[in-house]
Amino acid sequence: MPSPLPEDASLIRDETGTQRLIGYVADVSDPAYGRCYLDVGPQHLNRHGALHGGIAVTMLDNASGLAGSLTVDSTGRAPFLTVSMNTQFIGSGNPGRVTATARVTGGGRSIIFIDAELVHEDGTVIARSTGVFKRVPQEKLT
Amino acid sequence: MPSPLPEDASLIRDETGTQRLIGYVADVSDPAYGRCYLDVGPQHLNRHGALHGGIAVTMLDNASGLAGSLTVDSTGRAPFLTVSMNTQFIGSGNPGRVTATARVTGGGRSIIFIDAELVHEDGTVIARSTGVFKRVPQEKLT
Amino acid sequence: MPSPLPEDASLIRDETGTQRLIGYVADVSDPAYGRCYLDVGPQHLNRHGALHGGIAVTMLDNASGLAGSLTVDSTGRAPFLTVSMNTQFIGSGNPGRVTATARVTGGGRSIIFIDAELVHEDGTVIARSTGVFKRVPQEKLT
Amino acid sequence: MPSPLPEDASLIRDETGTQRLIGYVADVSDPAYGRCYLDVGPQHLNRHGALHGGIAVTMLDNASGLAGSLTVDSTGRAPFLTVSMNTQFIGSGNPGRVTATARVTGGGRSIIFIDAELVHEDGTVIARSTGVFKRVPQEKLT
Repeated sequence: MPSPLPEDASLIRDETGTQRLIGYVADVSDPAYGRCYLDVGPQHLNRHGALHGGIAVTMLDNASGLAGSLTVDSTGRAPFLTVSMNTQFIGSGNPGRVTATARVTGGGRSIIFIDAELVHEDGTVIARSTGVFKRVPQEKLT
Repeated sequence: MPSPLPEDASLIRDETGTQRLIGYVADVSDPAYGRCYLDVGPQHLNRHGALHGGIAVTMLDNASGLAGSLTVDSTGRAPFLTVSMNTQFIGSGNPGRVTATARVTGGGRSIIFIDAELVHEDGTVIARSTGVFKRVPQEKLT
Repeated sequence: MPSPLPEDASLIRDETGTQRLIGYVADVSDPAYGRCYLDVGPQHLNRHGALHGGIAVTMLDNASGLAGSLTVDSTGRAPFLTVSMNTQFIGSGNPGRVTATARVTGGGRSIIFIDAELVHEDGTVIARSTGVFKRVPQEKLT
Repeated sequence: MPSPLPEDASLIRDETGTQRLIGYVADVSDPAYGRCYLDVGPQHLNRHGALHGGIAVTMLDNASGLAGSLTVDSTGRAPFLTVSMNTQFIGSGNPGRVTATARVTGGGRSIIFIDAELVHEDGTVIARSTGVFKRVPQEKLT
C-alpha cells in the first residue's frame, strides 16, 4: 500500500463532492503540470477487477483542468471547462497509487489544448488523453 | 427529487466497486440500447456546482459497455473493453436524474463503435460520446 | 458512374486550392445541413484500393465547416475554424459518389459542436466525425 | 522554397492515387518513426490561405500508418487500417515544407495506439493526432 501523501499547502483535498467521493488529491506545486493522485481501492474497480475507465477519465480531466488553471495563477483554482476530451485506454490499472499528470500543449486566450497521462506507481501507463478546454470568462463568475 | 427506480430483473445494481461508489443503476431491458441511470447529488458535483465531467464519462462508458454486451446476449454481462472514447461536453448537468443511453453504430467481430448520450430529466443534453470498444476474447476469460 | 451534379447557385465549386485539387462540390441549399459531394476516382484511393482516410476526413471537415457557416447566413461562407475533430472509420469506401452531411449538435456563441457522416451512394457508411469548431471573430477578418 | 528531397531508397513516392494527387513523400528510414513530407503549395490551402485541415489529417494519418507498418518490417508496407483518429488543430500552416512524424505509444497484437504531429519547417506545430490502428490480418491479404 502506498505511503500517505504529506500534508502540504500545495495539495488540494476534499474540494468538491466528486473529489470527496472518489478520494483523489490534487497537486498544484509545479506550475507547469496539473497533477492528481489516487490510491486505487476496491471502490474504484470495474468488472475486470481493474481501475474503472470512468475513474481514470475523472483523474485525467481533473489534472487537465488544474493544468489550465495554473496558466492563470498558482492557486490552481481559476475555473476551466472541459469542451471535449479524447481518451485512449492503454493498459490495465491495478490497485495501488496512480498519478495523472497534465500539461498545456497549445491554444490561445480562450481555448487551450491539454494532454494528460495516468500512470500507475509500477510504471504502467493506464490511459492518455487530449482535450480542448475553455477558460470560464470572468463576467460569468460574478 | 426523482422517484425511485422499480425493483426489476433487468436492472443491475451494485455490481462493481465503482458502481456502488457512484450509485448508478444499469438497465439491460432493451437489447438495442445500453442504459444507466444516476440520481445526481452533491457527491457528483464539480467546482461549478454541476455534474463532474468524470462522472458524466463514467455513465457514458458504462452505458456503452452495456450496449456492447447486449450484442452478445441479454444478460448485459459479456465483457467489453474500452479502447478509446471521445466525449463532448454539451451542457451543464444539475442535480436530478440523468440517463445515459448507448447504441452500437458499426464494427465487426472484435472491434465495435458505440455512441452514447447523457441527458438530464429536464431534457438537457449534458454530454455525448463516441467510442471504440473491443470484445474480450473468450480465451482470456478462462 | 454517377451522373453529373446540376449547375445550381447553391453548389460551390473550385473555391479553394484544396477543393480544386480533390474535386469535391459543396452544397449550401439546406440551412440545416452542410453537405459535400465527391465522385471517388483512382486519385482518391489508398493502398487497399479504398477511399483514403485523409480524403474522407477532408470531406467531413468541409461539410462540418459549412454547417457552422450556415448558422450565420445562407451563403455558407462565414468562416469557422476546426478546433478538434474525432473520426471513426466505419466502412470501406469504393469508387462512386460519396456524400458528407453535417449538422450542428450544440454549442454557444463562439464554440459549436458539429457531427458529420460520410455515406457512399450504395448506402455504406464510410466514416463519422464529431468536431469542435470555432467561429472566426469578425475583428480578425478586417 | 524548400530544397528538393534527395533520391533515397527509404523514400516512398507516388505509391497510391492519393499520394500522387497530394504530392507527399513517405520516409521509412527510421524504424521508430513514420514520417511524411509535403511542400505546401496553393493546391493545399483552405479559405483562410492556410493548410487545409483535411490535408493536415491526410499527412498525420499516413505517417501513423507508416509507424504501424514499421513495427512489422522495415519496408513500411505492411497494411494497417485506421480505426479512429482524433486531431487537434493547434496552429496555422503556411506554404513551405511540413513534416508529419508518428510513433507507436501502446497496444497489443491487433490494436495499436499511434500519436502523430505535423510541424512546419518554421517550427510551428500545426496539428497533433492520436489514433487507434488495426493490423490487417494476413488471411485477408491472400
